Amino acid sequence: MEKTIAINAGSSSLKFQLYDMPSEEVITKGIVERIGLKDSIFSITVDGEKITETTDIPDHEVAVNMLLDKLISHNIIQSYDEITGVGHRVVHGGEKFPESVYIDDQVIKDIEALSELAPLHNPANATGIKAFKKILPNIVSVAVFDTAFHQTMPPSSYLYSLPYSYYEDYGIRKYGFHGTSHKYVSERAAELLGRPVEELRLITCHLGNGASIAAIQNGKSTDTSMGFTPLAGVSMGTRSGNIDPALIPFIMEKTGKTAEQVLDVLNKESGMLGVSGISSDLRDLEEAASKGNERADLALEVFVDRIHKYIGSYAARMNGVDAVIFTAGIGENSSFIREKVLHGLEFMGVYWDPALNQVHGEEAFLNYPHSPVKVIVIPTNEELMIARDVEKIKKERA
Amino acid sequence: MEKTIAINAGSSSLKFQLYDMPSEEVITKGIVERIGLKDSIFSITVDGEKITETTDIPDHEVAVNMLLDKLISHNIIQSYDEITGVGHRVVHGGEKFPESVYIDDQVIKDIEALSELAPLHNPANATGIKAFKKILPNIVSVAVFDTAFHQTMPPSSYLYSLPYSYYEDYGIRKYGFHGTSHKYVSERAAELLGRPVEELRLITCHLGNGASIAAIQNGKSTDTSMGFTPLAGVSMGTRSGNIDPALIPFIMEKTGKTAEQVLDVLNKESGMLGVSGISSDLRDLEEAASKGNERADLALEVFVDRIHKYIGSYAARMNGVDAVIFTAGIGENSSFIREKVLHGLEFMGVYWDPALNQVHGEEAFLNYPHSPVKVIVIPTNEELMIARDVEKIKKERA
Repeated sequence: MEKTIAINAGSSSLKFQLYDMPSEEVITKGIVERIGLKDSIFSITVDGEKITETTDIPDHEVAVNMLLDKLISHNIIQSYDEITGVGHRVVHGGEKFPESVYIDDQVIKDIEALSELAPLHNPANATGIKAFKKILPNIVSVAVFDTAFHQTMPPSSYLYSLPYSYYEDYGIRKYGFHGTSHKYVSERAAELLGRPVEELRLITCHLGNGASIAAIQNGKSTDTSMGFTPLAGVSMGTRSGNIDPALIPFIMEKTGKTAEQVLDVLNKESGMLGVSGISSDLRDLEEAASKGNERADLALEVFVDRIHKYIGSYAARMNGVDAVIFTAGIGENSSFIREKVLHGLEFMGVYWDPALNQVHGEEAFLNYPHSPVKVIVIPTNEELMIARDVEKIKKERA
Repeated sequence: MEKTIAINAGSSSLKFQLYDMPSEEVITKGIVERIGLKDSIFSITVDGEKITETTDIPDHEVAVNMLLDKLISHNIIQSYDEITGVGHRVVHGGEKFPESVYIDDQVIKDIEALSELAPLHNPANATGIKAFKKILPNIVSVAVFDTAFHQTMPPSSYLYSLPYSYYEDYGIRKYGFHGTSHKYVSERAAELLGRPVEELRLITCHLGNGASIAAIQNGKSTDTSMGFTPLAGVSMGTRSGNIDPALIPFIMEKTGKTAEQVLDVLNKESGMLGVSGISSDLRDLEEAASKGNERADLALEVFVDRIHKYIGSYAARMNGVDAVIFTAGIGENSSFIREKVLHGLEFMGVYWDPALNQVHGEEAFLNYPHSPVKVIVIPTNEELMIARDVEKIKKERA
């Protein structure tokens, strides 16, 4: 039995999910947190139970070694040799990586070079890659990029209306993110619809703590709401999404903050947290709003307004839509947000059933049978996409 | 016969249009340019001919005196007493002015206080007001605000997803502009459709050197693409419209520019000029693109893409639309842009006739008779709206 591990490495964390392939069965999963800090936490699921251990884990290499030891000690694998592939989530692939790639030394260099575009993420992703390369040098190692799926966008979507030299000299363009998730749910939607993805126009709403919407035509991303960074687009938990760009100098002048500090406010103190003044967590806001908190209600209204309008805008982008898909934490679980987002889209053929909307975290159609546009909840599965891309590249190299 | 003059004062210019009221007949119009500079230019239309004179005009007061003298010397009026009202375009009315107002001393102070939100425009507008007040102190003087029509937007449209205190402390919100134009064409569209504006859902596209789109439901603006400033929204002649806000610190770091300098690039070197590298003038770009210039073509594609998507987004805002209206320089005259913007909106019921689209600068329906959504070209007339508001306030005060 060949096993593939999907890895999502952050600066102080490492998430993993181990698959039996090609059956795609999840064998175990877990997370290492607080890497490099005191009292790091190692969690792993064994026979459906989460086992947690607190210890000092100084770096990602130690974390990977500990992970492999735990797989052995919990009898999940008998030998390292069983793991024949590893797939790493990498946030930014720039224009260099329109699809997943086998990781050689040059690819690691390229990922590190792209850190300029994703200073918080790419260096951490590269650290995870290097730790695995060192410990398991002979397995097939694959990079799966958050930006790759959106590389099919045409220039009219990805170019900003800025001096063209900014694109040529600094790579300033829309890249888009959550690509692995948008790709997964669009392919899964095609399966559920029983139609080839190449014939479909889909709007996928990845609504989590970060949120992005994509217009997927014939299986290809043609537009998405996030931009050069994951700050752009709709309003999110703590991120502002699009604002009048002239506000940045205005806020700097008013508050005495630097541009970087204002950017920090836009990333961490805005969105639903900023408007409500209460929380970035949707559940807190739904509860507060239900008790009459007006600012919580306002934060929800603003959040919904932007998503609702993006759906209209992407319907225009593709001259109509076959299905609207909801995924990620909020999209999969919040009946409340889905109802608000879907309210008033009959003009474009969206007729949904409030009874069907009472679904949480599982695949379901929300539309009435006669609705020209289908509405589907699909839990996302980026780890599975990573494992599949590892399999694919393994085969290509075999 | 009572006459009303509509005034649009810039920092070094003063546009005027004289109406016979209530017949709404235009008696004359003109412009004073280069006020405060050497070789100022005074132009006035007499019997359909434009007469131009070059002389030094040191300030707005001298400009107004010269204007009144010219009206007498060209036999347009016999005495100043014939002019019983003056209406001034004022760019920013903030939340203070949801409609046109009679100008007393307090209003002038308020307009000046709002200069913080429109530093280039409000001080100039106030200068024009004061010049008229001094020379014709007894006529009815009215301020007509670019922002007023959009004051009906609900908070979910006008609030940014930023810390709420920014709204409370600094007035940071979406104000919207071109309000007088959006209002005029929406009311005129209702007349042309033979239906009360209170029953209609309209999307008005004001496409000039500045461009904005508005969603007008039941006669009220419910959303618009410009924001805190006229930089936001769609791509324009030299303005970027919306971009990922994170780009401002990134561009600052890359180019060594200050935030204000980057803002200057966004306002003056971006938009169609920035992408094409050729011109901000649509006619130049259409010509260059027709000769195979790819960057000109790209600039047009980007321009059109944003407008097309805003139409979809505002259709979603109102759950459908009864008519899409084109106005201002580009909207009234460019068959090319209208065609590209309208292409692929059948999903929402827009069926337009390419033959009817060959219209320039005059009122016309572009839709097929059976089209559920009507498409109308309506030349805007902000001056007439100003004159009408003066009449209305004159009557209220009589």
